[in-house]
Amino acid sequence: MELQNNLHTEDGWQIIERAFDPEQLVTTGSNFMLGNGYLGYRGTFAEWEAEQYVACIVTDTWDTAADSTWRELCNVPNGLFTRALVAGEPLSAFTGETRDYERRLDLRTGLSTRCATWSGAAGKSITLKVEKFASYDEVQLVVMRYHLEAHADTELILLTGIDGQVWSLNGEHFRVYEPAVEGALLRLSTRTVEFDTQIEVVEGLRLTGKAPVRTTIRQEERRILRELRFRMRAGDAITLEKVVAITHSNQCDAPRAEALALVTRGVAAGFEALYAAHRAHWDAIWAVSDIEIGGNLEAQVLARFNLYHNIIATPTHDKLPIGARGLSCQVYQGAAFWDQEIFNLPMFLYTQPEVARQILEYRHVTLPGARKKARDLGYYGAFYAWTSGKTGEELFPDYFFTDVLTGRPIHNHFNSWQIHISPDIVYAVWQYYEATGDWDFIVQAGAEIAFEVAQFLVSHVYFKKDKNRYEFIRLLGPDEYHENVDNNAYTNYMAHYALERALLIFERLAEENPAALEVLLARLGLDASVTAAWQDIVELLYLPQPDPETGVIEQCDGFFKLEDVTPAELRKRLIHPEEYWGWPNGIAVEAQVLKQADVLQLLAQIPRWPVEILRANYDYYEPRTEHGSSLSPSVHALIATKAGLYDEAYRYFMEAATIDLYNMSKKVMSGGSFLGGIHTAAAGGVWIMIVQGMAGFAVTETGVRFAPALPAQWEALRFSVRVRGHALAVEITAEALTVRAGEENPGALPVTVGEETVAVAAGETATFRSDGGVK
Amino acid sequence: MELQNNLHTEDGWQIIERAFDPEQLVTTGSNFMLGNGYLGYRGTFAEWEAEQYVACIVTDTWDTAADSTWRELCNVPNGLFTRALVAGEPLSAFTGETRDYERRLDLRTGLSTRCATWSGAAGKSITLKVEKFASYDEVQLVVMRYHLEAHADTELILLTGIDGQVWSLNGEHFRVYEPAVEGALLRLSTRTVEFDTQIEVVEGLRLTGKAPVRTTIRQEERRILRELRFRMRAGDAITLEKVVAITHSNQCDAPRAEALALVTRGVAAGFEALYAAHRAHWDAIWAVSDIEIGGNLEAQVLARFNLYHNIIATPTHDKLPIGARGLSCQVYQGAAFWDQEIFNLPMFLYTQPEVARQILEYRHVTLPGARKKARDLGYYGAFYAWTSGKTGEELFPDYFFTDVLTGRPIHNHFNSWQIHISPDIVYAVWQYYEATGDWDFIVQAGAEIAFEVAQFLVSHVYFKKDKNRYEFIRLLGPDEYHENVDNNAYTNYMAHYALERALLIFERLAEENPAALEVLLARLGLDASVTAAWQDIVELLYLPQPDPETGVIEQCDGFFKLEDVTPAELRKRLIHPEEYWGWPNGIAVEAQVLKQADVLQLLAQIPRWPVEILRANYDYYEPRTEHGSSLSPSVHALIATKAGLYDEAYRYFMEAATIDLYNMSKKVMSGGSFLGGIHTAAAGGVWIMIVQGMAGFAVTETGVRFAPALPAQWEALRFSVRVRGHALAVEITAEALTVRAGEENPGALPVTVGEETVAVAAGETATFRSDGGVK
Repeated sequence: MELQNNLHTEDGWQIIERAFDPEQLVTTGSNFMLGNGYLGYRGTFAEWEAEQYVACIVTDTWDTAADSTWRELCNVPNGLFTRALVAGEPLSAFTGETRDYERRLDLRTGLSTRCATWSGAAGKSITLKVEKFASYDEVQLVVMRYHLEAHADTELILLTGIDGQVWSLNGEHFRVYEPAVEGALLRLSTRTVEFDTQIEVVEGLRLTGKAPVRTTIRQEERRILRELRFRMRAGDAITLEKVVAITHSNQCDAPRAEALALVTRGVAAGFEALYAAHRAHWDAIWAVSDIEIGGNLEAQVLARFNLYHNIIATPTHDKLPIGARGLSCQVYQGAAFWDQEIFNLPMFLYTQPEVARQILEYRHVTLPGARKKARDLGYYGAFYAWTSGKTGEELFPDYFFTDVLTGRPIHNHFNSWQIHISPDIVYAVWQYYEATGDWDFIVQAGAEIAFEVAQFLVSHVYFKKDKNRYEFIRLLGPDEYHENVDNNAYTNYMAHYALERALLIFERLAEENPAALEVLLARLGLDASVTAAWQDIVELLYLPQPDPETGVIEQCDGFFKLEDVTPAELRKRLIHPEEYWGWPNGIAVEAQVLKQADVLQLLAQIPRWPVEILRANYDYYEPRTEHGSSLSPSVHALIATKAGLYDEAYRYFMEAATIDLYNMSKKVMSGGSFLGGIHTAAAGGVWIMIVQGMAGFAVTETGVRFAPALPAQWEALRFSVRVRGHALAVEITAEALTVRAGEENPGALPVTVGEETVAVAAGETATFRSDGGVK
Repeated sequence: MELQNNLHTEDGWQIIERAFDPEQLVTTGSNFMLGNGYLGYRGTFAEWEAEQYVACIVTDTWDTAADSTWRELCNVPNGLFTRALVAGEPLSAFTGETRDYERRLDLRTGLSTRCATWSGAAGKSITLKVEKFASYDEVQLVVMRYHLEAHADTELILLTGIDGQVWSLNGEHFRVYEPAVEGALLRLSTRTVEFDTQIEVVEGLRLTGKAPVRTTIRQEERRILRELRFRMRAGDAITLEKVVAITHSNQCDAPRAEALALVTRGVAAGFEALYAAHRAHWDAIWAVSDIEIGGNLEAQVLARFNLYHNIIATPTHDKLPIGARGLSCQVYQGAAFWDQEIFNLPMFLYTQPEVARQILEYRHVTLPGARKKARDLGYYGAFYAWTSGKTGEELFPDYFFTDVLTGRPIHNHFNSWQIHISPDIVYAVWQYYEATGDWDFIVQAGAEIAFEVAQFLVSHVYFKKDKNRYEFIRLLGPDEYHENVDNNAYTNYMAHYALERALLIFERLAEENPAALEVLLARLGLDASVTAAWQDIVELLYLPQPDPETGVIEQCDGFFKLEDVTPAELRKRLIHPEEYWGWPNGIAVEAQVLKQADVLQLLAQIPRWPVEILRANYDYYEPRTEHGSSLSPSVHALIATKAGLYDEAYRYFMEAATIDLYNMSKKVMSGGSFLGGIHTAAAGGVWIMIVQGMAGFAVTETGVRFAPALPAQWEALRFSVRVRGHALAVEITAEALTVRAGEENPGALPVTVGEETVAVAAGETATFRSDGGVK
């Protein structure tokens, strides 16, 4: 079927492009990208170079260029570079004539394919098929099969090797380039500026079909290529299999040897064997994480597209962050924000809990960075970085935006005032524990995170003696247009939640793991009296309540006193289209206009209010929200669903799901900063909208609950979840919700729909009416 | 002698201009102005109109124009308007030929005189002498004597009456103009837009020398004039005495009748009698408040010029504010800032304590406005207005400056974050009590002020439980370039001082005036337990201490971490010369560059640190201060004197003393706002610099102390002070300090210089060596 934005799908797994649009080069590079959590390889053509934004972004290669203050991931030399010269003319999508063009990304297998028949000025026609994948079996490998068939006699030259002339968002990251021939392989070695990280790109080749008449090595300062000359006759075909390894010294001790060995083995195995091994991993992933949507092919492919991007953005090989733009580009420094725990994590929590644990362990290993940040800002405990890379030290700069009207840098306070990141992580820790029952994780890591965050909150909070309550002062909540606010409802509630959980954990450790508790407290320099302060704050923290008249929770102190103007009206006040709307003097600062859902985010995470309150707050805040963040629409869809506003919910579902694929991102530029790439939080939000929204899935004290609200646009919804060792396959139709318990499940799990609860034993199936009763 | 800026003086009492400079019209209008605390009459010529900024600003006429958000004092119709037409040609400083021009302001008597001989195109020469004063005897009166002598036969027409075509800084304040003839008098009545205040300007005339050949009344919508035609022969002279009353319904019940009666009586009395009565008031003022400087005529006239402006800015007829620009113009709304208590008040405190009491009583009658402001901002008690008019309600707008780079208004927080205004007032109350021993004032007014301010501070302060201390958060200190700071040293110390005094007052009232205390507490809705909170804050408030290494007190949390750059370097970053330097994005916001002395202000007001600390802080902050406020130089002079930096002190003395007279004001425009007029705080600062600085005068527990540091540029310094009913005449030379006690003094007063203390009895004289010993 035809999708929007020049795209098609066939079976809900394929993203297909049948016409090449040079205008969309930046976007399609993200949308057709490959990745495996170790590297992201942009959806670019083999013959392209820096000018076309070819990029292979590799995690854990953080570096600050000499002329920059930005630490970001490296775009490494491109080992897949391959250019064909047909009768001396470069095969190119920009010149000559292209017929039968098709590019597709198979989300099912992570394989990208490009086919085309091309003829240049000399009229020599040639057919091209290029397939490539970023291996999930060996994450350091990218593999390409480049197939050419000549339709006329012609000279053909293939230039193929490693192109180190890559671009970078913020400065030059490589201070050394060393191209070399290693037996049958090519190598390009670099070293980074800041940490002297050794990065190795090794390429190996397997050529079939026809032998070259001559092979030459061309070695330049920043690239090394083979030049293969062929005399093609009409009907001749050649196939080049390229195996490329990218290794670096932050991830292995001998990156060169490892890369050489990987490529040697890979070339020996060949494309098909490597692909089969890779594909087995995707089989396993989709077996647990797929969402099937019946009766709506567009929604189906959109859902999978977003799940795919949430998956490939997530490192599974090590404790590393999920980038706010995944590994799609260098924007946001390949670093984690609160997006990771609140948007990316839920899918993993309930479908791949072992990955979820690792994501949270990343927050444990980065505690030293969070402690340092707390100390640097005059606090103690753990104040997690707003932008967190390898070490957890703060990567977010004091000056991110530029005032486009004056050219002066803007000092925002995302890094220093947006404290909710810390309790958000405790929230995620506890969500993980509730989903898995994995107390071992709490003992090993979760307790330390929770205690250190609790201590940070103690060091931050103020007490108003005359009001006998604690307050959090000078905050920045999820709505980033309003800095320097007090008692941001979201932040206060999350802090309260985190302190409650820290107390719970402390008490249970004291009972069940007293030795571990003692060791932990000693390491943190704390003693048992520390909980008195936590308890005091839990009891006396100011938690803004819904207004008794309207039911609306005030986003922060004084919010209702700001100018009440619609986002559309406000927008007219822009002097320059790329102005930043927020601090210190943007158009939204003094207005009740939100960048993104703030109170709605609270309602999504703390499910303690009835539907009328959800509705009242949705009705109040939705028209005032500008959705300047890609995090905003999915929360709106979730709350709209829970509030019974199904049309609204579906509109926001489509908005969130199409941000990248349909290139709907509102602000590619803001305050002079480029904000492109894949919006991984929106991708993660698609799982949340469907499973926690439309299926109403939630974990209860003893089991799970569903509150299905299948969109009218769909016929059926199928997905799996795993809760505390139980696997459940769920199918929802307009009439029924069916739960099938996994064969291996450890006993029966109580499943609630509406007022009905059924304990579903291993291998059994329970069917409920969609409106709640048992069928 | 010749002064700077086209000015001269003769005996240290006269400001003399011998050439008219049309370029300086705005400045000379302020410098030659007349006033009496009820009205300010700009130093303009009788024939001038709105275009030349003629203005008579009357206190207690606050009004907001229909098209403005600014409440400001009215510029009332000009009753002195008089234009001569000589042979049909208007006598004008801008046309024709002027000889023997001289304008002088006699500071001794508040009389302004202009002499000139003028001839127009027709060559008819005429000599003019105009004298005028704003009566201190009847403050509603301004009186002018207009004398003309013809040197050739000529027709002469005098147009004289009331000109209502006045300008206004922010909109039209009069919704009605009613010109009328009342017997022999002219009247122009108006009513204001906002409060319907009735303003009456009545003019009466006495003509001598020659009778007019014809008299006509010319009545227009906004003015009423007499046209007097004369046939002058060479040597003929006429003298016009104009008596003008300005009354309004905020200050009397029947303003029209009162104005008519005043003018009728005034015309009958005549210029000389009115002037004699007026002058007697100036005699009395200078008898107590003059400062004589021997051996330096420039310093002498500068001192008196500033004392004069501090005096005429100060209402003595009612409990009304001293405007930050006095009554010299409409800038700053004719309203009081902290300037009033900290800069204007000291001269009155120690030379005219009855005026000082009235100034402070103004803060008592405006408590309702301060309470309202506190409530509006979520506090209780009394949060005094940053800009305080009649009622004490906040006049300072949320948007004062404009971003000259974008045209957008700037939301500063002078009104909401600059809380030190409230404890500053308690500080002044206590200074008054210490200076006078006037416990009755405390019982009648001071206690209520102190208690309400203490309650405000309770409602504002936060407690950090983990640090066991109180903190003040989100402040703006005297250095207004740094908004949103915590624990501003000046503010914290002043709050501490105020709370201590509130406790002292409470305790003494409980002991000596328990009934009054009970009544007061009942009225405030408080009970005796209220002091527990005050005591707690006094004990646990964080008071930033001098750094043990450097001795420097940090201006606010984190100040030392800001960029350390000189004001001169910083200035180079300006894109536009009129940019506002401060919040939110001005060039000084992230730099250690001060608008004005902040910690130095603290050191000036709280004398608890030794000279090394004064020196260390002066050395640190002085080079970092931009003196963007006229309040800054005088504090620098004071602290430099106390720190023994005499050259520095004298440099700053001259800077503060010449701001207006030499037109040295740094920023006539800032952030798009006009900031001209007389800088009355700088004027008040001159008394402080001399008496509290160079003479080192201070009140001690039982008497007074002097620490003379006579500038090398001076031979002698003479002034008087009154302390607790004791009058002291002081003379300081390089060798000696002599104190003569008043004949009426109530017993002996201990006077300390250095280590020596002498109890000086009524009528006695004590002489000390200037370096401390008794002579």
